[in-house]
Amino acid sequence: MIKLYIGNKNYSSWSMRPWVLLKQAGIDFEEVMVRFDSFESQSQFKTTLAPLSPTGKVPLLVDGDLAVWDTLAIAEYVAESFPNLQLWPADKSARARARSVCAEMHSGFTGLRSNCPMNIEATLLETGALIWRDKPAVRADVARISAMWTELLAQYGGPMLFGQFSVTDAYFAPVCARLKTYGLPVSPVVGAYVSRVLALPGVQDWITGALAEKDFLDFEEPYRLQR
Amino acid sequence: MIKLYIGNKNYSSWSMRPWVLLKQAGIDFEEVMVRFDSFESQSQFKTTLAPLSPTGKVPLLVDGDLAVWDTLAIAEYVAESFPNLQLWPADKSARARARSVCAEMHSGFTGLRSNCPMNIEATLLETGALIWRDKPAVRADVARISAMWTELLAQYGGPMLFGQFSVTDAYFAPVCARLKTYGLPVSPVVGAYVSRVLALPGVQDWITGALAEKDFLDFEEPYRLQR
Repeated sequence: MIKLYIGNKNYSSWSMRPWVLLKQAGIDFEEVMVRFDSFESQSQFKTTLAPLSPTGKVPLLVDGDLAVWDTLAIAEYVAESFPNLQLWPADKSARARARSVCAEMHSGFTGLRSNCPMNIEATLLETGALIWRDKPAVRADVARISAMWTELLAQYGGPMLFGQFSVTDAYFAPVCARLKTYGLPVSPVVGAYVSRVLALPGVQDWITGALAEKDFLDFEEPYRLQR
Repeated sequence: MIKLYIGNKNYSSWSMRPWVLLKQAGIDFEEVMVRFDSFESQSQFKTTLAPLSPTGKVPLLVDGDLAVWDTLAIAEYVAESFPNLQLWPADKSARARARSVCAEMHSGFTGLRSNCPMNIEATLLETGALIWRDKPAVRADVARISAMWTELLAQYGGPMLFGQFSVTDAYFAPVCARLKTYGLPVSPVVGAYVSRVLALPGVQDWITGALAEKDFLDFEEPYRLQR
């Protein structure tokens, strides 16, 4: 069975993507949680992952002797392994666009990612309002994401970005979580998509896990002193 | 025919990747050069790209009505469009590893990327020696790249990372150019791979184009006053 190594569910947005993809698609897998203690070379986190992956990061998918690292490579591997599930859109043009927006997420949106770290358990509305007021990079990222989602939902008819659930929705699920935690302003159309993603059973399972965690890691928590 | 929009060949490492992929694979395409003037919204660069792509960035592949942006999505689109060329390794495990290292490049190696911007025309050996002495992030990135390449060359037998030319070699071609420009120290095995990549006809064509450019863009040139 596929093993998926992940970090803390409350914090690890990159872990969330393939986990939600597998879960929502109904693929059996074994979850291996490697708690974030620190990212120093002698940490429990790094020493656990070092023998398994050359990057020492999560998420990591292990299938027999094969290690697949990095969310995009994992998504491609899963989609290829389960072609009947059509985890990428079946239409070639739609698939190219889906890969474009995932790649854009993979290397971009650094304003949102650095200022609004994922923190599923938290509600940080005042913090979010200050960020929104003071950080043009966050406003620009949310504007681009809103335009992208609005266009795709209109073109493919919803309820997910390319009609039915695909890699893209798993890829943007942590963005939906951030928009909620920080209460960033979005249009009704975008807000409705955020609600639909957060209500997906696979996403709800992840959120339930995040809420059950008792960790408070200060290096992941720039905006509060305790959970 | 496919159109590929690129930036300056001397500077645009992200443009180089899909261009080299198409060229080395022998795929016909039309090159559209959009010179870097600045990245402000009113620049010639941004106003040229804005109607074509929602990100306003290069590289951008346009195939009829379809715009595909971001190097990884372009690579997948090209590989899928020309399956006979086997631009990803044919073996499923090898293909997963190839995608893992490309995704790692796509979102990582920021020490090397920020300190050693691609500058094909330049020879910056003393600058490189100072960077090597002072920047542990560069040493760490080169160590990881060297370990990756050494392992893949041993496992798949060379001359390219997965035996024959694949997306991965196009993906790391700008890294080879950086190692040369800055004279960063690598093992003989790694150095020989760098030489083989830089000697590929598709890479040589790109280098010839870069050397023919007369642009000197100070915002791309942290280490010298003129070309």
